[in-house]
Amino acid sequence: MELRTVEWKNDSVVMIDQTKLPNELVFVKYTDYNDVAEAIRTLVVRGAPAIGVSGAFGMALAALQSSSETIEDLLSDLTKAKKILFETRPTAVNLSWGLEKIMDVAKQGKTVSEIKDAIINKAKQVADEDIDTNKKMGKNGAELFQNNDTIMTHCNAGALATVGYGTALGVIRATKDSGKNIKVIATETRPVQQGSRLTAFELKHDGIDVSLIPDTAVGYTMANDLVNGVVVGADRVLQTGHVFNKIGTYQVATMAKQHNIPFYVAA
Amino acid sequence: MELRTVEWKNDSVVMIDQTKLPNELVFVKYTDYNDVAEAIRTLVVRGAPAIGVSGAFGMALAALQSSSETIEDLLSDLTKAKKILFETRPTAVNLSWGLEKIMDVAKQGKTVSEIKDAIINKAKQVADEDIDTNKKMGKNGAELFQNNDTIMTHCNAGALATVGYGTALGVIRATKDSGKNIKVIATETRPVQQGSRLTAFELKHDGIDVSLIPDTAVGYTMANDLVNGVVVGADRVLQTGHVFNKIGTYQVATMAKQHNIPFYVAA
Repeated sequence: MELRTVEWKNDSVVMIDQTKLPNELVFVKYTDYNDVAEAIRTLVVRGAPAIGVSGAFGMALAALQSSSETIEDLLSDLTKAKKILFETRPTAVNLSWGLEKIMDVAKQGKTVSEIKDAIINKAKQVADEDIDTNKKMGKNGAELFQNNDTIMTHCNAGALATVGYGTALGVIRATKDSGKNIKVIATETRPVQQGSRLTAFELKHDGIDVSLIPDTAVGYTMANDLVNGVVVGADRVLQTGHVFNKIGTYQVATMAKQHNIPFYVAA
Repeated sequence: MELRTVEWKNDSVVMIDQTKLPNELVFVKYTDYNDVAEAIRTLVVRGAPAIGVSGAFGMALAALQSSSETIEDLLSDLTKAKKILFETRPTAVNLSWGLEKIMDVAKQGKTVSEIKDAIINKAKQVADEDIDTNKKMGKNGAELFQNNDTIMTHCNAGALATVGYGTALGVIRATKDSGKNIKVIATETRPVQQGSRLTAFELKHDGIDVSLIPDTAVGYTMANDLVNGVVVGADRVLQTGHVFNKIGTYQVATMAKQHNIPFYVAA
């Protein structure tokens, strides 16, 4: 079964509880946007794209929960929900982006029920687009790797950071799906261990051969010709081409350069 | 109080129980060489020089424990003890070196009591020499650093890896003792965390300003001009000048080169 981090199902939001990973794969179901806010706050869901979509789904729940009979009252309920959802992670750009997308749609509706429908459809669309984008990027990225390559990745830019499929791990999934035989080396990614807790978990879940190494072993594995390429995600990309990503990405990139190993950012 | 990892006191061996660090500073006392063997096996004591001296002290206990009345019987008891001590860490070169030093002395004695005295004196001498060597090395190394420098170190090449003072941390102690104001950045050193458990503990114990970073943050701290120099210990030095040390040392050195930061090995 393909991992789907956050999903709209029968007028409710279903999420993987990432605080239980990698020991247990538990799905939680929310029908109250306040619970979605709490889920974002307590890292049940994390990863910039996944948080953005969770915010949009939270707004969809808020629309369903509202008993307002006028557009004005509904917009007032939505504004309140937006504030509560936004304050869970005020620095997350994707969250405010997801919330704004929904508010834009809400403001265009002509009736209360039209607005509610439009919000739910928009939220589902935002989620689907995230997966589509990742699959397209994966397909392009798959051309960068050869049969029998070993690919290193740092942190978790996977299904669990997005709605599904992933950015860097999307490239890895697409490479495997294209028929190439690959292995993956995941760095532990201290201090919060997204590599061991999330990346190793989700690749193993998908039947991809993954080895976990401490962050100290990056140079050793590269010096011993155990790595053919590196792919990571990004938190931000500047117009200059500079990339911001999880602490440690810079030294993985420097070690790759030292050993003439191609280093790619999937974003 | 200066940390002394392993010491001869009133016909017994006193060690810091390193399995209790950094939470508790507990000293254990042994009068039976079998207990010293068990201490080496269970990592109560670790670090190449400290293990070598512990082996020598174990032999001294074996000499005291022996009730033999002939040189032949005493040498037989010592050979048995040497085998038991050696098998605790058969790959540790310093251990076999420490045991051989004692056997060489034992073979030269003319009477049972002369041999016993010579062994104890030799073991104490081996321990004292370890500290003297580190202090001399520290004094030389102290000239490499300036007032207000921040020095990075990886793993634990400290008092806790030696009898006292340390190699890389000996240089740091000597730099501070020379009157220079310094700060230290210790890497966590995954997977076994000698940096956080041991290096941060012993420098804090000595009142040296130490900050702990995850191994992923080496590049970041260097790129932000937070490091003036690096000093590490060594497990082995080849005649070619190549150095073997804890996993991760190579990438710390590569990052230092990338940022034109001097990188020193104290060994």
